[in-house]
Amino acid sequence: MEAAATLSSFSILFSRPPVRFLASVSLPLLSNPRAVAPRFRNLCRSVITSCSADRVVARPSSELRRKHSVSGPEDEKLRALRELFSRPGIGIDAYIIPSQDAHQSEFIAECFMRRAYISGFTGSAGTAIVTKDKAALWTDGRYFLQAEKELGPDWILMRSGNPGVPTTIEWLNDVLTPGCRIGIDPFLFSSDATDELDEAISKKNLELVFLYDMNLVDEIWGESRPKPPTKPVRVHNIKYAGVDVSSKLSSLRSELLEAGCTAIVISMLDEVAWLLNLRGNDVPHSPVFYSYLIVDTAGAKLFVDNSKVTNQVIAHLKTAGVELRPYETILSELESLAAEGGKLWLDSSTVNAAVVSIYKSACNKHGRSGEKGPAALFKASPISIAKAVKNEAELEGMRNSHLRDAAALAEFWVWLEEEISRNARLTEVEVADKLLEFRGKQAGFLETSFETISGYGANGAIIHYRPDPESCSIVGTKNLFLLDSGGQYVDGTTDITRTVHFGEPSSRQKECFTRVLKGHIALDQAVFPENTPGFVLDVLARSSLWKVGLDYRHGTGHGVGAALNVHEGPQGISFRYGNLTTLQEGMIVSNEPGYYEDHSFGIRIENLLYVKEANLPNSYGGIRYLGFEKLTFVPIQSKLVELSLMTPGEINWLNEYHSQVWEKVSPLLNGSAREWLWNNTRPLPH
Amino acid sequence: MEAAATLSSFSILFSRPPVRFLASVSLPLLSNPRAVAPRFRNLCRSVITSCSADRVVARPSSELRRKHSVSGPEDEKLRALRELFSRPGIGIDAYIIPSQDAHQSEFIAECFMRRAYISGFTGSAGTAIVTKDKAALWTDGRYFLQAEKELGPDWILMRSGNPGVPTTIEWLNDVLTPGCRIGIDPFLFSSDATDELDEAISKKNLELVFLYDMNLVDEIWGESRPKPPTKPVRVHNIKYAGVDVSSKLSSLRSELLEAGCTAIVISMLDEVAWLLNLRGNDVPHSPVFYSYLIVDTAGAKLFVDNSKVTNQVIAHLKTAGVELRPYETILSELESLAAEGGKLWLDSSTVNAAVVSIYKSACNKHGRSGEKGPAALFKASPISIAKAVKNEAELEGMRNSHLRDAAALAEFWVWLEEEISRNARLTEVEVADKLLEFRGKQAGFLETSFETISGYGANGAIIHYRPDPESCSIVGTKNLFLLDSGGQYVDGTTDITRTVHFGEPSSRQKECFTRVLKGHIALDQAVFPENTPGFVLDVLARSSLWKVGLDYRHGTGHGVGAALNVHEGPQGISFRYGNLTTLQEGMIVSNEPGYYEDHSFGIRIENLLYVKEANLPNSYGGIRYLGFEKLTFVPIQSKLVELSLMTPGEINWLNEYHSQVWEKVSPLLNGSAREWLWNNTRPLPH
Repeated sequence: MEAAATLSSFSILFSRPPVRFLASVSLPLLSNPRAVAPRFRNLCRSVITSCSADRVVARPSSELRRKHSVSGPEDEKLRALRELFSRPGIGIDAYIIPSQDAHQSEFIAECFMRRAYISGFTGSAGTAIVTKDKAALWTDGRYFLQAEKELGPDWILMRSGNPGVPTTIEWLNDVLTPGCRIGIDPFLFSSDATDELDEAISKKNLELVFLYDMNLVDEIWGESRPKPPTKPVRVHNIKYAGVDVSSKLSSLRSELLEAGCTAIVISMLDEVAWLLNLRGNDVPHSPVFYSYLIVDTAGAKLFVDNSKVTNQVIAHLKTAGVELRPYETILSELESLAAEGGKLWLDSSTVNAAVVSIYKSACNKHGRSGEKGPAALFKASPISIAKAVKNEAELEGMRNSHLRDAAALAEFWVWLEEEISRNARLTEVEVADKLLEFRGKQAGFLETSFETISGYGANGAIIHYRPDPESCSIVGTKNLFLLDSGGQYVDGTTDITRTVHFGEPSSRQKECFTRVLKGHIALDQAVFPENTPGFVLDVLARSSLWKVGLDYRHGTGHGVGAALNVHEGPQGISFRYGNLTTLQEGMIVSNEPGYYEDHSFGIRIENLLYVKEANLPNSYGGIRYLGFEKLTFVPIQSKLVELSLMTPGEINWLNEYHSQVWEKVSPLLNGSAREWLWNNTRPLPH
Repeated sequence: MEAAATLSSFSILFSRPPVRFLASVSLPLLSNPRAVAPRFRNLCRSVITSCSADRVVARPSSELRRKHSVSGPEDEKLRALRELFSRPGIGIDAYIIPSQDAHQSEFIAECFMRRAYISGFTGSAGTAIVTKDKAALWTDGRYFLQAEKELGPDWILMRSGNPGVPTTIEWLNDVLTPGCRIGIDPFLFSSDATDELDEAISKKNLELVFLYDMNLVDEIWGESRPKPPTKPVRVHNIKYAGVDVSSKLSSLRSELLEAGCTAIVISMLDEVAWLLNLRGNDVPHSPVFYSYLIVDTAGAKLFVDNSKVTNQVIAHLKTAGVELRPYETILSELESLAAEGGKLWLDSSTVNAAVVSIYKSACNKHGRSGEKGPAALFKASPISIAKAVKNEAELEGMRNSHLRDAAALAEFWVWLEEEISRNARLTEVEVADKLLEFRGKQAGFLETSFETISGYGANGAIIHYRPDPESCSIVGTKNLFLLDSGGQYVDGTTDITRTVHFGEPSSRQKECFTRVLKGHIALDQAVFPENTPGFVLDVLARSSLWKVGLDYRHGTGHGVGAALNVHEGPQGISFRYGNLTTLQEGMIVSNEPGYYEDHSFGIRIENLLYVKEANLPNSYGGIRYLGFEKLTFVPIQSKLVELSLMTPGEINWLNEYHSQVWEKVSPLLNGSAREWLWNNTRPLPH
């Protein structure tokens, strides 16, 4: 799965010419590098789907796109929203509607898709702002066409990144007069984000108003608003989690004590799920559930809708001393904590502004404004890194699920080759749906880990391509086919891209493919000292392309959760050098260089890797040297390799990889899939 | 020439385990990445030599070390210094004596070596602080032994970087009581440095006192203090400079106008020399002269000791509208500028605190504190980058001088091989002196561009090794010999390192040499998009070493001046990623990976390169792609290459390089040197 979305946030920090996707409200909010890793989640692809279905089933891609058509005249919604502006206790002149939920999630439940509801624009990234007489929507180049189609006549489309297009803040400062009040739902912004927003607008003497009690869009959405998800939470088996909840809480408590804190508020859904060895089904693609968690030095409280919690989960939590509280009571709990004294650990880059500001004002109310030391430590969540460094059980689950995933892919590829050879004229979406079917047959499969990118020919060159069932291409034999997909399994999460040609690739395509492959191999083989940030290695994946003046406009690698989110921080491998997180043993990263020739074809080769100590003859400086082990074992199409560009070492790498693929995956296959695997893992000549 | 000294300053910004050379006063002062490039100059090697000699001659290394022995009892100096503390108009409790001159120079004139005079410690890096009852000297690991030997009994040696050793600021805050006054000579600190110092000590309620009128060390040094240098300034021929002074001033004035400034104060000596196409001989190794330059929108004033200025220089300056002023009148000129109004461009990371504070207080005196906009723009000097991007004439001079330098080296190497084969038992210093003799025969040779690093065997593993004529090793046939040296020529500056073995290298040495060479080749062959900072490429030079757990503790490349300083900013290639300066066409960088096996041997292979547009079949993103061209053409010893570790492409690189060496350098040679060159440029088999 490519990492562009993940990294578009960095592009704002370190501008390289054309990669500047989000210049919405997020723009000034992203100047804190620490904030980037978690925040990317809501910049990535999201999917419009029902969250009220009862069964936990995998949904084919073709079903995922027809929902959420624009219902009713936009101006009616805007009129209703503006009426609320002057309601007593509100009194605002503008309202900002971001894409986020309250937890900075990458994929969100439909009931939280307020920006899509109010504006009609259903793309994953965008920010709407409504003033008394204007309504504007900011989105990036991926979505200009879609937004033009979906926005009603009362909306102004702000093409972020285009010359002369103001940022949200510039626009607010421009259209509002001093003294105006800008309302937001403080649950939908990180605390850091509101701080920066507040600072930027206060220069123009505008006032930021937190509307805690009511989301204005929900208010006008009314009865037609989808219900919040209520899928049951399940226990994540200890054989996959590796470490029990009590031990994880105990480690966390040591960190709290060391930092002089008495409690921590955790709001990232994957952090809650990881820490409590629980999994949920509230949003598409990520096995998480809406909740907050407060861990103090003695106990822990999980704030979650009671209806999702089974007896088994209650027992599981009780063993670890975790109490249950209704989701909505998080704020009153913070007020109690403020009254009790102590010091709270808050990651202000991920915890929403409602949580932080309620706690701060409660502290002030209780006269705790500094004289006994600060009431809060604002620092990156310690769980982010603990979660990123996988234990042996998590790695084992990842390895196993990747082999089953590889078996599904072998079955899929042989099926697709046969279909194409008999000229079946399958669309990109039909192909993706069939892949889901093959994955669905594998033990422990739950759902896709993100929306499949199935791009034939020129569509493959669109990095964020999402095929539309109505209009997408037929997968044929005249061009390259790029397939980026992944699965959620009970024991692991996969993410793999392969690019293939079902006919005769051009020499241009072979050269580009081979250079991407050389980059992939160089990164795969990298050995590096501990304490190396991921960005240092990025050049290894690019230099074979650079040699002939080619490049790709996305990062090379992102973190992946173990049976959790397909995108996770804090580590990454990118040409943008804002992320100083070092690569550590047990971390998982994707290795996905690519090349995209506009209007022509796209190439990406993606494996997942984990960081492992390298077994070397020296250790200069008395430190450890690290390298990568592969998780993904799926053939790379030899037909696309231009042998004359490969060094003997690179050919050896490919042959050795294919020999491992055969060895590890063939036991899971038989019949034509096994035969396909054999044929596609034959060594290349030197 | 290795880049460790250059880069030690970065190590403070981005700590990697053991590379933390300078933790002196500089420590907190280096948190501004912009400040790093210029400031490194005074962190690098300096040399203790006479600056009162009349003739402009090259001085052999053996003469350069015997000067400056500790004369007189230290306590007498300390007593005299402390007596000054309580003199009327002074009234201080501590005095800081840094290594710097007033211009942040890497190499300084002897009369400015106050820290060496007061403490007896003659190493290039160190900071002395004297309080009423204590005297302490901070230096880094390179100099612990030397400092132990040189410091008198009243001095405390502070081993910077060792556990538990306080920084200068921590120490001041510890030993002084609130209200104490710390005196400094404000000419010897950059403005940024004093700002940070002031902030750090004010926390303890200590006061920083600028003593403008008198350097206290000079006061006690008295008659025995060496006279300031008076060597004549010369015109740098336009055929080497490429651009005349009027054009350079005109470009600078455009930048001033664009920035809304009326004048700029330039204090870096190489910037003055470059801008005015002048060269001097005030300090060893760098062809610069002590001066300040003020350029305003109409004219320019050079502040320099009149006795150095020949009629030819006067005429040259007059043509460009540059007036002469006595060096000492810089402060009164600033007061006039403040009175006149206007806005001064000041690079506070390089301009000394005396200049900035005098200007600021004069502005205040004239009521210019902001109401008509700020009276100064604090911004990096525009000359730094203009100077770094070489024009065609400068590159031509660099190419030509490198060929003559290569001819001198060929003559030297054949001489050395012959001497060693007849068991001449030459010391490292004798060898370095002979090299100087060979260079001295070349047209346009002036002097060494830095003190030669001539290290046999274990000495080669000491990155900052300076052989002592009394105790240095014999260059023999049992181990590797590392020779890092450079020359100043009228048309260019060279810097080259070769590592050779005069007997039978071990397989370990061959493996290490070959991995260093592979890194050298990888960087040499790099192609990269414009806007790439140098640090991105650093990994290319290291990864072949990392693969077996080896590394080197210095950066890979530094900028080099054209007939100017051998170390210049702002660009660099380093694993420390604080320097975001992009590599631009025309910039010169060294390519000098190495490997150092403690107590055993050292390897470094250094060429100078310049950045050039790459001629490629594509230009993805519509941008330019850049690569390197070599300046250095000296054989790399084939005997040390382990062929089995080299790819065919790497062997081709070496053969192609040697073929170019023969082609370019053989016309300058005859006899045994030509024969040596022929023998040492034969292709390796594949």
